[in-house]
Amino acid sequence: MKKVAGGVTIPKGFKAAGEHVGLKRKRKDLAILMSEVPATVAGVFTTNVVKGAPVIWSHKVASACTPIKAVVINSGHANSCTGPEGYVHCVQMAEATAKALGCEPEHVAVASTGYIGVPLPIEKIEAGIPVVAAMLDNSEAMGTAAAEAIRTTDVFTKEIAFELEIGGKTVMIGGMAKGSGMVHPNMATMLAFVTTDLNISQELLSKAMKESVTTTYNMISVDGDTSTNDMALVFANGLAGNEMIVSEADAGYEIFRKALHTVNEHLAKLVARDGEGATKFVEVSIVGSESREDAQKLAKCVVSSSLVKTAMFGEDANWGRIIAALGRGGVDFDPAKLSIWFESDGGQLPLMAGGQPMIVDPTAAQKVLGEKDIRIGIDLKSGGLSEATAWGCDLSYDYVRINGAYRS
Amino acid sequence: MKKVAGGVTIPKGFKAAGEHVGLKRKRKDLAILMSEVPATVAGVFTTNVVKGAPVIWSHKVASACTPIKAVVINSGHANSCTGPEGYVHCVQMAEATAKALGCEPEHVAVASTGYIGVPLPIEKIEAGIPVVAAMLDNSEAMGTAAAEAIRTTDVFTKEIAFELEIGGKTVMIGGMAKGSGMVHPNMATMLAFVTTDLNISQELLSKAMKESVTTTYNMISVDGDTSTNDMALVFANGLAGNEMIVSEADAGYEIFRKALHTVNEHLAKLVARDGEGATKFVEVSIVGSESREDAQKLAKCVVSSSLVKTAMFGEDANWGRIIAALGRGGVDFDPAKLSIWFESDGGQLPLMAGGQPMIVDPTAAQKVLGEKDIRIGIDLKSGGLSEATAWGCDLSYDYVRINGAYRS
Repeated sequence: MKKVAGGVTIPKGFKAAGEHVGLKRKRKDLAILMSEVPATVAGVFTTNVVKGAPVIWSHKVASACTPIKAVVINSGHANSCTGPEGYVHCVQMAEATAKALGCEPEHVAVASTGYIGVPLPIEKIEAGIPVVAAMLDNSEAMGTAAAEAIRTTDVFTKEIAFELEIGGKTVMIGGMAKGSGMVHPNMATMLAFVTTDLNISQELLSKAMKESVTTTYNMISVDGDTSTNDMALVFANGLAGNEMIVSEADAGYEIFRKALHTVNEHLAKLVARDGEGATKFVEVSIVGSESREDAQKLAKCVVSSSLVKTAMFGEDANWGRIIAALGRGGVDFDPAKLSIWFESDGGQLPLMAGGQPMIVDPTAAQKVLGEKDIRIGIDLKSGGLSEATAWGCDLSYDYVRINGAYRS
Repeated sequence: MKKVAGGVTIPKGFKAAGEHVGLKRKRKDLAILMSEVPATVAGVFTTNVVKGAPVIWSHKVASACTPIKAVVINSGHANSCTGPEGYVHCVQMAEATAKALGCEPEHVAVASTGYIGVPLPIEKIEAGIPVVAAMLDNSEAMGTAAAEAIRTTDVFTKEIAFELEIGGKTVMIGGMAKGSGMVHPNMATMLAFVTTDLNISQELLSKAMKESVTTTYNMISVDGDTSTNDMALVFANGLAGNEMIVSEADAGYEIFRKALHTVNEHLAKLVARDGEGATKFVEVSIVGSESREDAQKLAKCVVSSSLVKTAMFGEDANWGRIIAALGRGGVDFDPAKLSIWFESDGGQLPLMAGGQPMIVDPTAAQKVLGEKDIRIGIDLKSGGLSEATAWGCDLSYDYVRINGAYRS
């Protein structure tokens, strides 16, 4: 598996484009991603009781299990909580895209991200879709333009691509994503789109994606919940020319599964790193747990604690907040066995070993916590060997500024 | 029921004192609250898996169901996650207080609040206890001194007292509390102490307290969890001279139950209002729910959402964040039936009615959200008639400042 430049346009037969059509003040706000030939698609959608119209529509499109052609994405407005009109607007986006690409609306997924509860300026979107469609090409630059157009408060564009070999054929995989409200990303829409030219059955594509999401996008910050518009889609158009992968026993399946997981993990970590106002990237690893589920619960509880996050911002070795967050995670463990440590490029800092607090040297603490990337390690020593990792960021003044005056 | 000045020293036979003994830089940091005669006690303690030594000790003291004499409380250090030594220190606090008051250590509850994981400066506390004990009296001023001494980052002192008539006797009830890390109060220790001179059985005292806590201290901000050191104790010493209340059917029980609930609700709201860095007090009321449990889950989910809290700080009528928080609350409801509104001294602002977004006039929104006290009303229109209210505050720059540099 070799990392290559670019994102969603790297696999054969995928084209993308992104442009400013007037939803935001200046920045790109409409993207189309398409496959020249119908592509198999699999998706994972928000579990929020309140679902944006695009989630309802795209879930239907993906569930049909028929190959689809494209996805159209707007940023600036989430098209959520906009009443029955919101669904009509969503269908209009699919229709306009289908018309521009010469396919059926049912073969176009739709995604929206941005402010909730304000009706879409649908005329601008309908006028913009043919413009963006006319720009579609398979260049790396246009892949990046699409990745830019799906951003909201994201500070940087998130994309990645790899080259693999499967069944004697060169297979490419690429992806793009956006975040980025990080204290409760469940409310900031998380969108991810992965493309591959692999030839694989819908069933296995779906299985690989669902499994991977559990330990990637579902492990960033937060409490495991999702926004009204969250969506992760993977497209496979078969143009790599390999014999179709239809069995998990196929060696190619394992190669693809790992590559897809690497793409998803990379994008998920970029989303965490780009949390609103983030100055630090925080990774929380739980080891020695009786089950992966327990480890996941605890890792998420620690990474999403506002007090742990503000301590990271303040570069304060306040591990009491870590232990208190662990204690309310809904998992039984023995505090007298706990080991906790910080890790970074500045070294390792033991905080607690076998339930006993360690003496923390302030100079060593400053050296470890002064870095940008901080890892919090926690060994439950339960006797079990399960583990999990969650990713997040610190909580800074800028988070409050960004979210206290989001509209302006 | 008549509101009177003062707090825990208002009921007959209760004395208190608070003084600076060197745990904090300058402010009062040690309090003793005692009853001249042994008092019946009932308590509610943190459900955190990690429990501070004082929680373990005081739970044992309260569970013995024998009358007790006093509680000693230090602020500055939480005596939590301090290993076996922490428990020894806790017992030493009970012993020193018992010695000063002439009772058994088993008749002294202990509470600690402040920084987690740092050993108590036990010598300073042991030296301070006789000093504070010598100051004990039943004046309003010393009740206030005790309420001051239990504060950590609390901006103001929290106390309240009422006069009631039960069984032809004048009965007094008083209370004090401290908060106050408000985004996750489950980590900031919440302590509350209520005194009354009512004569009531331990069983009924405990029942009244447990029921009241569910809809008061457990409904401030947060996700329903608790810190390692949270504790709420109620003392009843019987000096009012009424015939002992031993049955729920006794008319006096209902009068007391309501008074206790009023005291708890008042203190809980003060804790929410004094959230770290708070500039606004936020009340979230859910009505039209199928069950109280559902309504409580949703009210807590909305009031503890960082995005809702930052919107309140920014005086932004961003109700999309409210609806998204509702949707991840773990309760099924029909978004198409929802009504949502803001309320304050500035008026009422309808945001959504029957699932349809309302047009929000920015001037009217500014008038309503510009106030200090904001109420968010949510009608689920489920057909059920259950309801619940949760209290919290906004999330400001100061929250980050306070928690990013807590130690300094």
